[in-house]
Amino acid sequence: MTRIVALRTLDVRAPTSRTLAGSDAVHADPDYSAAYAVLESDAGVAGHGFTFTIGRGNDLVCAAIEALAPQVLGRELDELTADFATCHRRLTNESQLRWLGPDKGVIHLATAAIVNAIWDLWAKRRGLPVWELVAGLTPEEIVGLIDWRYLTDALTPDQALDLLRAHAPTRAARVAELRRDGYPAYITSAGWLGYPEEQVRQLCRDALGAGWTSFKAKVGIDVASDVRRCAVMREEIGWEHTLMADANQVWDVPQAIEWLRHLEPFQLRWIEEPTSPDDVLGHAAIRRAVAPLRVATGEHCANKVLFKQLLQAGAIDYCQVDACRLGGLNEVLAVLLLAARFGVPVCPHAGGIGLCEYVQHISAIDYVCVSASLDDRTTEFADHLHEHFLDPVRVRAGRYLLPERPGYSAEMRPASLAALVYPDGSEWRRA
Amino acid sequence: MTRIVALRTLDVRAPTSRTLAGSDAVHADPDYSAAYAVLESDAGVAGHGFTFTIGRGNDLVCAAIEALAPQVLGRELDELTADFATCHRRLTNESQLRWLGPDKGVIHLATAAIVNAIWDLWAKRRGLPVWELVAGLTPEEIVGLIDWRYLTDALTPDQALDLLRAHAPTRAARVAELRRDGYPAYITSAGWLGYPEEQVRQLCRDALGAGWTSFKAKVGIDVASDVRRCAVMREEIGWEHTLMADANQVWDVPQAIEWLRHLEPFQLRWIEEPTSPDDVLGHAAIRRAVAPLRVATGEHCANKVLFKQLLQAGAIDYCQVDACRLGGLNEVLAVLLLAARFGVPVCPHAGGIGLCEYVQHISAIDYVCVSASLDDRTTEFADHLHEHFLDPVRVRAGRYLLPERPGYSAEMRPASLAALVYPDGSEWRRA
Repeated sequence: MTRIVALRTLDVRAPTSRTLAGSDAVHADPDYSAAYAVLESDAGVAGHGFTFTIGRGNDLVCAAIEALAPQVLGRELDELTADFATCHRRLTNESQLRWLGPDKGVIHLATAAIVNAIWDLWAKRRGLPVWELVAGLTPEEIVGLIDWRYLTDALTPDQALDLLRAHAPTRAARVAELRRDGYPAYITSAGWLGYPEEQVRQLCRDALGAGWTSFKAKVGIDVASDVRRCAVMREEIGWEHTLMADANQVWDVPQAIEWLRHLEPFQLRWIEEPTSPDDVLGHAAIRRAVAPLRVATGEHCANKVLFKQLLQAGAIDYCQVDACRLGGLNEVLAVLLLAARFGVPVCPHAGGIGLCEYVQHISAIDYVCVSASLDDRTTEFADHLHEHFLDPVRVRAGRYLLPERPGYSAEMRPASLAALVYPDGSEWRRA
Repeated sequence: MTRIVALRTLDVRAPTSRTLAGSDAVHADPDYSAAYAVLESDAGVAGHGFTFTIGRGNDLVCAAIEALAPQVLGRELDELTADFATCHRRLTNESQLRWLGPDKGVIHLATAAIVNAIWDLWAKRRGLPVWELVAGLTPEEIVGLIDWRYLTDALTPDQALDLLRAHAPTRAARVAELRRDGYPAYITSAGWLGYPEEQVRQLCRDALGAGWTSFKAKVGIDVASDVRRCAVMREEIGWEHTLMADANQVWDVPQAIEWLRHLEPFQLRWIEEPTSPDDVLGHAAIRRAVAPLRVATGEHCANKVLFKQLLQAGAIDYCQVDACRLGGLNEVLAVLLLAARFGVPVCPHAGGIGLCEYVQHISAIDYVCVSASLDDRTTEFADHLHEHFLDPVRVRAGRYLLPERPGYSAEMRPASLAALVYPDGSEWRRA
């Protein structure tokens, strides 16, 4: 038995705004941060989970984690995971805190930290990485992880079972393939908006040298500078490689359609976040207007109900699920199943701090258990801040290698936690 | 000149869960609360604003208000209101806090408190109630209050100007009419889910006696008890009066359609919140299936982009805008204009603590400046907690009387603040 006996939070922030890493059209100066939760157990092992933010307000998420703590404190891990859907519902429907969402914003980000910490603890107790824990569950057990409320008009539990059963007998072959080849990825680190041109060129060359073949540019400040940045990146990476662009929500719907005409020459694979992340119908209108350019979104998609609608409305070509924006892995699994139902590839959002560590598990689960396809799939990678993790991602020639250590790869090094805790860590005192 | 020199927050909570006032299918035990902001100025007058929550987590919203405070501290009121759209954008797009939304959840609730406090201060300095301040603005000035980002595919500033100009010459007549007759309303206080049948009957009789003609029942626990509650209310109010029902988000889409068949005999005016507040397409599907029963939603609608889509998708018959869920009156004005553009009546959500005090201004603005119609309009009223306000709502024979004191009617009595501050107020120490 493993009882959860304490929950600690840590307000962890990396001072990335000093270098403009992560800068884009609406996030000018992010300090990549983690609202970090440690679930202490009486078994001597702790579950670590966090949600990602970009600085100020990370303390609010820590406070929200503490407000949700009574939902898990004192409980047996086996009891929580045996009916994980009910545990999830208890967190997302706490009778008073629910008003602050529901299922969105600070309270849902906090839910993600706790839920992912439970997964980390569960996987450590089983001695397995999270992806492998899920890959060892039956289709019925996976369906039982999900709170199906609000989903059944698009996907019923029975339909999800059919999807999972179809690929269950062949899971082992895909695991072997991932162990051998890794999972395809693309790199975002080169194209941050705040970087000068020469730095973008050098980063493209470095990434090409490291075997990357798929790149992403940040756009959305003004047409001329977007055209310039895309041209610079195309000059460096050539036309045989893939280029995407990310507008980070800056455009109105008609504006997006007009603006994207100017980017046609660059043969972009997708345009990401062309407008408000809440605008399902807007994304659908943009997608119809800019085809064959494809539309991607998801990192700010608040919950499974938004993803359900993006899929129902034919609004997206790529589903960029986020490991922390949704309420933890259980809700991510619901979105993987919805995307499979609608035949839309999942290309998880990553970067920030620790998001790459999370999404490597998500993409593996998607391939092994849900979609059974690598067609048109690629997972985001940004080469920042991995040094702070005990089990950092490993990439080789543009692919994520499978994580093999027990847990959700979410645990940060004690020295990093001490340095980055805000405002008293050594990294902040130094500033 | 009026400079904002300090911002104070108060975590104000009323222990309503002791009586089950406000109880519904998903909020079993609300403690009606206000995350309360006081903008102190150097002119000796303070702007009071708050956002409504239902208890736990109210402290998170207070902390979020404090995190946003640098956007207004030290600024001149005239500077803020002269370009209020930019002031609003600065609050909703603070470069790091934005990640916690955007435009939703704790951070957007906090934005509402600050923005509404600015309105209160502005109106007090002008010596006018907020509705009258707006009614004195030109169409151009009203359009200038709104951040138009993400709206122009549904409504452009020029189209909004046309709407406002059409009714500008006749504003004075509607003001006179409201001063004479008040604004039509309905009452929710009778039908709380946690109340026993005899209490529901007595409250219906009391409300009939006070001149109410429009009533709302809470449904969504189980079909049998919903049928029972609706039958009891119909027995008391008769068939010549109006009955609505509110499901508070409990159903899946197919479940809502099936369940509502059982409520057909009660000739409901609308079904409110039949499913997830984020589910635009779900509301549209339910509306198509249950016609001629009409669909209402809005109190949990996170922002103007959601309302835009509800209207674009033909998902609602009634737009239940909330004074605090949106980021303050400026965003509410955008929704009033969108609703007018789509010909959908606005019937604001109220109740809780202080929401009635706010929405009386919103409905007056809608009638005087935007829709110029009372057809099929009704504003929610619940008879709770008005005693805590310096300028409480006044109702007569089922209608809100126009507020006449300067400000946004948001200021609570000092004695009430002292009693309800959590956890140290006398009301809480007594518990």
